[in-house]
Order: sequence, then structure tokens, then C-alpha cells
Amino acid sequence: MKPTATPVAESDPEARHAARMQRKKALIDEKIDAARMERGVLLVNTGNGKGKSSSGFGMVARALGHGMKVGVVQFIKGHTETGEEAFFRRFPDEVSFHVMGEGFTWDTQDKARDIATAEAGWQQARALLNDPAIGLVLLDELNIALKHHYLDVHKVLADIAARTPRQHVIVTGRSALPEMIEAADTVTDMTLIKHAFQAGIKAQPGVEF
Amino acid sequence: MKPTATPVAESDPEARHAARMQRKKALIDEKIDAARMERGVLLVNTGNGKGKSSSGFGMVARALGHGMKVGVVQFIKGHTETGEEAFFRRFPDEVSFHVMGEGFTWDTQDKARDIATAEAGWQQARALLNDPAIGLVLLDELNIALKHHYLDVHKVLADIAARTPRQHVIVTGRSALPEMIEAADTVTDMTLIKHAFQAGIKAQPGVEF
Repeated sequence: MKPTATPVAESDPEARHAARMQRKKALIDEKIDAARMERGVLLVNTGNGKGKSSSGFGMVARALGHGMKVGVVQFIKGHTETGEEAFFRRFPDEVSFHVMGEGFTWDTQDKARDIATAEAGWQQARALLNDPAIGLVLLDELNIALKHHYLDVHKVLADIAARTPRQHVIVTGRSALPEMIEAADTVTDMTLIKHAFQAGIKAQPGVEF
Repeated sequence: MKPTATPVAESDPEARHAARMQRKKALIDEKIDAARMERGVLLVNTGNGKGKSSSGFGMVARALGHGMKVGVVQFIKGHTETGEEAFFRRFPDEVSFHVMGEGFTWDTQDKARDIATAEAGWQQARALLNDPAIGLVLLDELNIALKHHYLDVHKVLADIAARTPRQHVIVTGRSALPEMIEAADTVTDMTLIKHAFQAGIKAQPGVEF
């Protein structure tokens, strides 16, 4: 039989906990010390779960808390004002907020109009990407416009890559294209575990919009 | 051989697109019509990817945009002020913001102190959960405190269940306990696909804190 080593403090749960936390801290400190590069990052929030756009808006709040200026372009969404729009429009000197589109595509049923709308949105996005005063740009639901080929992903990625230095960009929307995932620094898949919707609960202000 | 039906407009891609969008719209409208219940929901953001807390803070912004009052308790985190704290503290009449704890547990290495801190945080959370003026409560990183058994999950869930009617609650943090997932209406697993960290990029203001 293999003998097992008995740690000195095995009989003391408090000491074991402290030792475990100490090892965890050492490991994490090591990783944090190794990550030294500072530059603008491209973040992508995709997947079929909740939290893609709201996470983007949380980062907007975070950036404003650090005194940064922020640009927002919402693609596709449009006809009803959301809570996030009402709130962030309170700060016109800090947030440049743009809503493009005339409702989700399945309300539109007119592809040519959707393409023209998406292109107008992209012009607005480019202006923000080229503005050195803007520290963070949120391109909300851009993935949807790309997935429907309303915009060309190569053109979009080239414009993002050519943005003003050190600016952060967040792209949201389900079904992110492989090219977008490849180009991104940080990608999260918001995976649906369950949704109140499935239990017959309505979309509610403050939660879904 | 099986004959295949030829749709009337198969030769016209625009018409096919419109028909597809029409069907999609009908399906979604049906589901939305079926979901009629309005009540306070419990949302859980868990997983090892980015966006759990930021999504919670995005919902805070959303709720404020609808004129709701919001309560926030951040568990465990503590010693450095984050962007979200600096930003939402600007609105003391709308946001009741509390930070509990003295840094992540792996900085603390003192379980008894962590438990006392978590309990003090929970008293603050209970006050918000019982306040009918508060429409949304964000319990940021609560899952971590539960996972380390700093708080009892059954007690916490009983207090959440007994909250003021129609209030929404968001719980964030990796490693949500099965009891928390079971009790929740909406659960998202923020799944890490990749993180800038892995490419040696530092945590940066506006993005990670």
C-alpha cells in the first residue's frame, strides 16, 4: 500500500483553510504578475443566454466611473426606448448614445432596408472608433447584423483593428461569427441554463429592457 | 424517389428571406403572448467567464432608466474602489450601495473574519430585500460567500423568497450552489471562451474593474 503524507495541520480545519487560501493567493498573484500588457481590448459577449447586452452596459458604467467617455451604438433594436437608453442619455457629455434600426429584423421583413440601416449604424460606429476622446465603445447586437450579412465582417473587423489606440470595444449579440471570435481578446458565451420566460414570466422593465 | 415541394418564391432570395422572417416573427410573438406573468424574478449569473457582475450592473442601469430604486451589496470584494462603485455612488437617492468585506478571501486567510464580514453583508442585504421602495437588488459575488460556507444557503434563499413583492434580485459569482440554481427563475452560465488575461494583457479600468 502507498503511504499517504499527513499534512502537519490536518487535524485543524482553520489551519487547513488558511493554507489552502495561501496557495490559491500565490497562484493567482503569479498569474496577475505575468499579465503586464496594457492596450485596448476587443470583448465579445455571445450565446443564447441573458446578460450579453447588460454586461456591455455594466462596463459602460464601470468606464464612466473611471472618468472615461463612452460611445454606444445599438444595432437592429430600435422602436421602443429601453431603460439603458433612458438612463445613459442622462449624461450627454460622457455618453454618445446612438440607436440604429427600426426594430428586430423579424419585424422588418425588408432586407434592403435592414442593410441600409445597418450601414448607417456602422458609419456612426466608425466615427466613435476613430475618436481618441472615447475610451470605450459598445456595439450592442452587432453580431446579429453580421450574422444576417447586413454588414461585411471583414470590413467591420478592419475598422475595429484600425481604431484609436487603447480604446476598448465590446461587441454583443448571439451567433458571433468565427471571424469575430478569432479577432477578439476576450470572449464569453452567455449560456442559457434557464429563463423566466420558460416559466411563463413576461419580459419586465429593469430586467429584460 | 421522394418528390420535394417547391416553394412558390424559391427563385427569389428576397421573398424567401421575407417569408423566413415572417415565420420567425410568428413563432416569437406566440411565445411572448404566452408569457403573461409579472412578478419579481431571481436571476443568477455564474460560470468562469467574464460578465457576471457587469451584467448585474447593466441591469442596475436599466432599472434606474425605468425610475426604479436599486440596492447593491458587493460581497467579499472590498479594498479598492471599482468603476461601478464610483459611478453608482453618484446617485445616492436612487442607489443604496454597500461594499462588504476586505478583499477576496485569498487575501484574508482568516475564515472567522470572513464569516463575520459576510454576515454583516447579509444583514444589509436583508434590509434591502425587505424595503418595498427598492425594485432591484444586486447581490454581487454572493455565490462566492455561499460556496465557502460563509453564509448558509437555506437561510439566504428563505430571506430572498420572503422579500418584498415584485422586487427583482440578481445574484452573481462563479460556482453557484445547486440550491441557488434550483431557486432561480433565470440562470446564465458565463462561459469562458477566451480571456485577454491569457494573452498577457493586464486587468484594465473600465473593463475588469
